[in-house]
Amino acid sequence: MYVVAVYDVEADRTRLFLNFLRRYLTHVQNSVFEGEITDGDLEEVKGQLDSMLEPGESVIVYRMSSEQYVSRTVYGDDPTEDSQFL
Amino acid sequence: MYVVAVYDVEADRTRLFLNFLRRYLTHVQNSVFEGEITDGDLEEVKGQLDSMLEPGESVIVYRMSSEQYVSRTVYGDDPTEDSQFL
Repeated sequence: MYVVAVYDVEADRTRLFLNFLRRYLTHVQNSVFEGEITDGDLEEVKGQLDSMLEPGESVIVYRMSSEQYVSRTVYGDDPTEDSQFL
Repeated sequence: MYVVAVYDVEADRTRLFLNFLRRYLTHVQNSVFEGEITDGDLEEVKGQLDSMLEPGESVIVYRMSSEQYVSRTVYGDDPTEDSQFL
């Protein structure tokens, strides 16, 4: 399946989520990840997120059965084309 | 169609995008909007974004032909349940 994940966490904790989610998905914008993921890996991500998140923080995961059901357009400067993009 | 829009703009300009996107979509997380939108309104949004965005800023729009193709899960505290959520 194809997912888009968006996190909203305390500024000093973004690195933690960046490093974690990067193991499963592609970092495409400041707090946005996307990519193909297996059911097993998604369960792993969910379990880990539940233990990582603190009060007031959230991650939204949008799931589509396949990438064919979503089209994606970037307006402005695509961060992934910037070599400085972490 | 159903869209998810995520913006990454300078901190002092988020209000501008928040107020603009709120006219078309539902604010669901810090820099995330989603909802049903007509082709006409999406064209309007695109045109406006192109003129609003400055170098280094971006908005990603994920389009699905219908909400039935996407399922959404919130981990942690869902911002929309927080009465303080702007």
